[in-house]
Amino acid sequence: MSTGRLEAFSDGVLAIIITIMVLEMKVPHGAGFSALEPLLPVFLSYVLSFVYLGIYWNNHHHTLHVVHRVSGGVLWANLHLLFWLSLIPFVTGWMGENHFAPAPVALYGVVLLMAAIAYTIMLRAALRVEGPDSPLARAIGRDRKGNLSLALYVVGIMASFFQVWAAGAAYIVVALIWLIPDQRIERVLGE
Amino acid sequence: MSTGRLEAFSDGVLAIIITIMVLEMKVPHGAGFSALEPLLPVFLSYVLSFVYLGIYWNNHHHTLHVVHRVSGGVLWANLHLLFWLSLIPFVTGWMGENHFAPAPVALYGVVLLMAAIAYTIMLRAALRVEGPDSPLARAIGRDRKGNLSLALYVVGIMASFFQVWAAGAAYIVVALIWLIPDQRIERVLGE
Amino acid sequence: MSTGRLEAFSDGVLAIIITIMVLEMKVPHGAGFSALEPLLPVFLSYVLSFVYLGIYWNNHHHTLHVVHRVSGGVLWANLHLLFWLSLIPFVTGWMGENHFAPAPVALYGVVLLMAAIAYTIMLRAALRVEGPDSPLARAIGRDRKGNLSLALYVVGIMASFFQVWAAGAAYIVVALIWLIPDQRIERVLGE
Amino acid sequence: MSTGRLEAFSDGVLAIIITIMVLEMKVPHGAGFSALEPLLPVFLSYVLSFVYLGIYWNNHHHTLHVVHRVSGGVLWANLHLLFWLSLIPFVTGWMGENHFAPAPVALYGVVLLMAAIAYTIMLRAALRVEGPDSPLARAIGRDRKGNLSLALYVVGIMASFFQVWAAGAAYIVVALIWLIPDQRIERVLGE
Repeated sequence: MSTGRLEAFSDGVLAIIITIMVLEMKVPHGAGFSALEPLLPVFLSYVLSFVYLGIYWNNHHHTLHVVHRVSGGVLWANLHLLFWLSLIPFVTGWMGENHFAPAPVALYGVVLLMAAIAYTIMLRAALRVEGPDSPLARAIGRDRKGNLSLALYVVGIMASFFQVWAAGAAYIVVALIWLIPDQRIERVLGE
Repeated sequence: MSTGRLEAFSDGVLAIIITIMVLEMKVPHGAGFSALEPLLPVFLSYVLSFVYLGIYWNNHHHTLHVVHRVSGGVLWANLHLLFWLSLIPFVTGWMGENHFAPAPVALYGVVLLMAAIAYTIMLRAALRVEGPDSPLARAIGRDRKGNLSLALYVVGIMASFFQVWAAGAAYIVVALIWLIPDQRIERVLGE
Repeated sequence: MSTGRLEAFSDGVLAIIITIMVLEMKVPHGAGFSALEPLLPVFLSYVLSFVYLGIYWNNHHHTLHVVHRVSGGVLWANLHLLFWLSLIPFVTGWMGENHFAPAPVALYGVVLLMAAIAYTIMLRAALRVEGPDSPLARAIGRDRKGNLSLALYVVGIMASFFQVWAAGAAYIVVALIWLIPDQRIERVLGE
Repeated sequence: MSTGRLEAFSDGVLAIIITIMVLEMKVPHGAGFSALEPLLPVFLSYVLSFVYLGIYWNNHHHTLHVVHRVSGGVLWANLHLLFWLSLIPFVTGWMGENHFAPAPVALYGVVLLMAAIAYTIMLRAALRVEGPDSPLARAIGRDRKGNLSLALYVVGIMASFFQVWAAGAAYIVVALIWLIPDQRIERVLGE
C-alpha cells in the first residue's frame, strides 16, 4: 500500500487545523488599534502553534520520503497523531484568551507532549514495516531531538504552575530545535 | 473514469469533517482546570466520532484499492455517504452538550446507521461495475461485519430510550469491530 | 498547463463549502427531539444545497475530463465560479433560518443563477482553448440543459415574491435535471 | 525533493482561507433585503480578499511550474507566506464590520504588504536553489510588478489615516496589476 493517500489526508487535516486556528481570533468590535490589544496573547499563541504545526507538516513530509509501505498500524498511528494535533486550536484559544494562565499553559504542553509521543509511535510503527536496516532506521538513529523534546515538554508542563514564562520558554526552545528541517533524513536522502 | 478524483474529494470532505468537529468544543471562559469539566462529555463524544471517521476513511481507502472504475452511480452513492458523515459534527455536539441525553444519543445512532447503509449502497454500486468475480466481490464476501454493525446500531438506537449507556456500549462495540483494518480486502490484495 | 492543480484546488474549495454549510445548523440547547423542530427548514435548505454542490462537483469532474489545456482565462473563470458557490452557505443559512421567506428564497436563486452563468462562462473559456471540433465542443453541443436551468432560475426568483413554494419547486426541478450525470460528456468519452 | 506535496499543502491552506472568509458574513436575523444592508461593507471586503487570494493561488501555481527542486528554506518561506495569508480572513472581517475605518484599512494593507514581502522572500529562496540562469530567474527578471505593489501598499497604509478611499484605491490598483496572469512566466514557459 502506497503512502500517497496517507500524505493527502494528513496534508488536508494539517492544512485545516492550521487555518481554523485563526477563527479563535475573534474580530473585535472596536474600530481602533486599541481594540486589538486584548487579542495580543491570542495572536502570540497562534504564532507559536502555527510554527509547531509547520514543523509537524515539515517532518511528516520528510519522514514519508523514506517510508515505502504503509501498514494498518501506520495508518492508525497517523490518525492518533492527527487526533492530538486537532486539539491544538482548542488549547491555543484557551491559552490565549486566558493570557497564559497556569492551567491552560500546562494543558497546551500536555497536548504537545501527547502529539510528540504519537509521532514517536508512528515512527516505530513505520520502522516495523521498513526494517532495522532501512533508510528510515538510519535517518531516525537514536532520535536525540525527539527525546530531548519530550523532556522539555515535561519540564514546561511542571514549570507552568510555578513560573509560567519558563514553560513558554521550554515550548519555544523545542520549536527552535525542530525549526531546522530534519537533517538526519536529508543526509540519508543525499547518500 | 478513474478513482483518483473521487478519493481526493472524499479525503478532503473527511479531513474537514474530522477537523471542524473540534470547533464544537467551545473554548471555556475560566482559566482553571475546573472550567474544562463541563466539556468532558463533548470531548468523549469527539473521541468516539474521531474514531468512527477514522474507520470510514480507512475502509474507504481500502475499498477503493480494489475498485478500478467509477460510474455515475458510484459517484452519487459516495456523495450520499459523505452527506450522512457530514452530519456527525452536529450530532456529536448535540450529544456532548446534553451529557448523553436519550434523544441525542438515539439521533447519533440514526446518523451512524444511515452512514452505514450509505456505505453498503456504495459497495453495491461499485460491485455492479466491477462484476461478481471481481477482487471487490471476493473482498466483501457476505459482509458479516457490515450486517452485524447495522444490527448493533438498531439495538443502540432503541436502547438509548431505556438504558442510555447500553446505547453507548453498542456504538463502541461497532467501532471496536472495525478498528481492525478490513482484513478481507488485505487478504485479497495479498493474493 | 495541465488541469491537475485546477482540479485539486476546486476539489478543496468545493469540499470545504459543502462541509462548512453544516456549521449553519447550530447545535440546539434543548435535549429533546422538539429542540430540533426549528432546525427543520435549515436542514431542508442544507439538503438542497448539498445536492447542488454535489452536482457542480460531478459536472466539474466530467467536464475537466475532456479539457486538455488550461489558460489564464479558464483559471479565472473557475475562480469566478467558486466565488458564487462560496456564497451558498450564507444564502442557505439565511433561507433556512427565515423559514423560506420571499427575500432569502429569491437571493438563493440569484446566487444559483450567478453560479450557473459562471459555469457557462467557464465552459466558453475552455472552448476557446480547445477549439470548435474538440470533444468538449461535441460534449456541450447546444447546452439545452444549461439554458433550461437559467430560465428556471429566473422563473424561481420571480416566483419567490408571489408563491414561495413555486420558487422552491423550480430550484428542485433544476437539481433533478442535473442529478443524472452529464450524459453528453459520457457519450463523447465512450466514443 | 519534488514540489508536489508543497503545492498540495498550499492549495489546501489557500482553499480553506478563501472559504472560511465567508463565515465572517454572519447570517442576519431579519428576513427582508434591508437586513443585508449592514453586510454590504463585509461583502465588498470579501470580494477584494477573494480576488487577492485568487491572485496568490494563480501566481503560486505559475511560479511552481518553473521551480524544480524545493529546499528546507523554500518550505519555510512558503509557510511564512501562508501565515500572513491566513490573517486575511481576520483583517477582512475587521475592515468590513467597521465600515472601512482608518485603523482596520491600514492593518489590512499591512497584512497584504507582509504577504507580498513573504512572497518575494519565497522567490529569492527558490532562486537560490534554481540558480541565476534558471527559467525561474528569467521569469522573475527585475520583478517590477512586485516592487510596484510593495510601494502601492505602503502608500495605501499611509493614506488610510487621511483619505481612507485612497487606501482602498491603492489596494484595488495592486489587484488589477496582478489580475493578468504572470505573463513573464507564461512567456518563459512558451519558449
